[in-house]
Amino acid sequence: MSGWVCVAGLGPGAEALVTPEVSAALDQASDVVGYVPYVARVTPRPGLTLHPSDNRVELDRARAALDMAAAGRRVVVVSSGDPGVFAMASALFEAIEADPRHVGLDIRILPGITAMLAAAARAGAPLGHDFCAINLSDNLKPFAIVERRLRHAARADFAMAFYNPRSASRPHQFARVLEILREECGPDRLITFARAVSTPDESLRTVTLGEARPEMADMRTVVLLGNAQTRRVGRWVYSPRRAEDAV
Amino acid sequence: MSGWVCVAGLGPGAEALVTPEVSAALDQASDVVGYVPYVARVTPRPGLTLHPSDNRVELDRARAALDMAAAGRRVVVVSSGDPGVFAMASALFEAIEADPRHVGLDIRILPGITAMLAAAARAGAPLGHDFCAINLSDNLKPFAIVERRLRHAARADFAMAFYNPRSASRPHQFARVLEILREECGPDRLITFARAVSTPDESLRTVTLGEARPEMADMRTVVLLGNAQTRRVGRWVYSPRRAEDAV
Repeated sequence: MSGWVCVAGLGPGAEALVTPEVSAALDQASDVVGYVPYVARVTPRPGLTLHPSDNRVELDRARAALDMAAAGRRVVVVSSGDPGVFAMASALFEAIEADPRHVGLDIRILPGITAMLAAAARAGAPLGHDFCAINLSDNLKPFAIVERRLRHAARADFAMAFYNPRSASRPHQFARVLEILREECGPDRLITFARAVSTPDESLRTVTLGEARPEMADMRTVVLLGNAQTRRVGRWVYSPRRAEDAV
Repeated sequence: MSGWVCVAGLGPGAEALVTPEVSAALDQASDVVGYVPYVARVTPRPGLTLHPSDNRVELDRARAALDMAAAGRRVVVVSSGDPGVFAMASALFEAIEADPRHVGLDIRILPGITAMLAAAARAGAPLGHDFCAINLSDNLKPFAIVERRLRHAARADFAMAFYNPRSASRPHQFARVLEILREECGPDRLITFARAVSTPDESLRTVTLGEARPEMADMRTVVLLGNAQTRRVGRWVYSPRRAEDAV
């Protein structure tokens, strides 16, 4: 029997946002590999071995998944959201590049609902025009790159989505991000803090950049910044489809 | 009985990529509104009225959906992909802003798998680092904005996803986009043309910018450009998670 690896996106939290494709892969799996809270979302059953592991061991986890598949197991690597957005898909290919024995394995990446799109849907349509997605974690890149990307994105008048805005290990960095955004975009730009979207802990808050405080975000928050046209209508926030040549 | 509107993302094409949340909304709907090929993806049943309409009448369609919901109907506005990414959600809020009678209606936006993430999953993980999404259609924005965004995105070293790269009404514009990208990123940058992902017509092709030709894209194609680190491993294309301060 030949093994395989799927890297599957579980979406932001709600079962109703897991695609049938991902559910089918989980039904066929012999092994599920992933960060503890994501593996906890998979229903145990006879014949399925769960392999929860810590955060920040993405490469080890990818290697373990590849080794199991090479040994004939049917392995699902679970990610939150979409596996290709700041998640496990890149780590898997890094592991393959480092160990090309695995390049011929049966591998599939199964997309999921990524946090920024779930959050945007709850807020209205703040990403309804050109936008960018930036991972604010500086584990794997220097803050100078983050700053340069923020300034270019602001000058391009992109709406922006920020993943991993804040953690205990770098409490001051998100304050600096907000300062840069205020410099570039002014105090009136709308910003939405979307926490734990689609879970029982969900909360949403839209304020202006002038009102935004670092404490409004934690590691379960995705942050959405509007473009120059983004506005409120009733309880909603949205970016119109039309852009004027005035950025 | 009180009416409602859902703006629902059907994903890129395959049934296995439609979320259970969207399927449930369609099961409960009295009316489905949308562009002809998207409405054609909804299975007819007694009690469900389908309202297919042409492209480029998004505001009329949004107004019709709101009027029906105000009259007590249960309306699903269907979009391809995700409704918040260059799709119907912004048009709905534009219609509400123009006619605030509707602001109190029961409205939900239901996220879907957007084309760039389905395409990225098929290709590997080309959007595995910071990235942006740009709609190349100039129906609703001047090309000068597109050009400015391309240059800022390149200088920020974002990976990029391009929606609506090419149409019969503007055959030369995508050639100009490729020229700008070659100027900014050089000829060796990887670019993936992903057509009709998850449908029977799916095709995927990765070349360098130097090899890229406008004819490789049409209106069913989403185009993914790598960042400076994006590379091939076997048949896959991916962007590593780590970035160096050398953009």
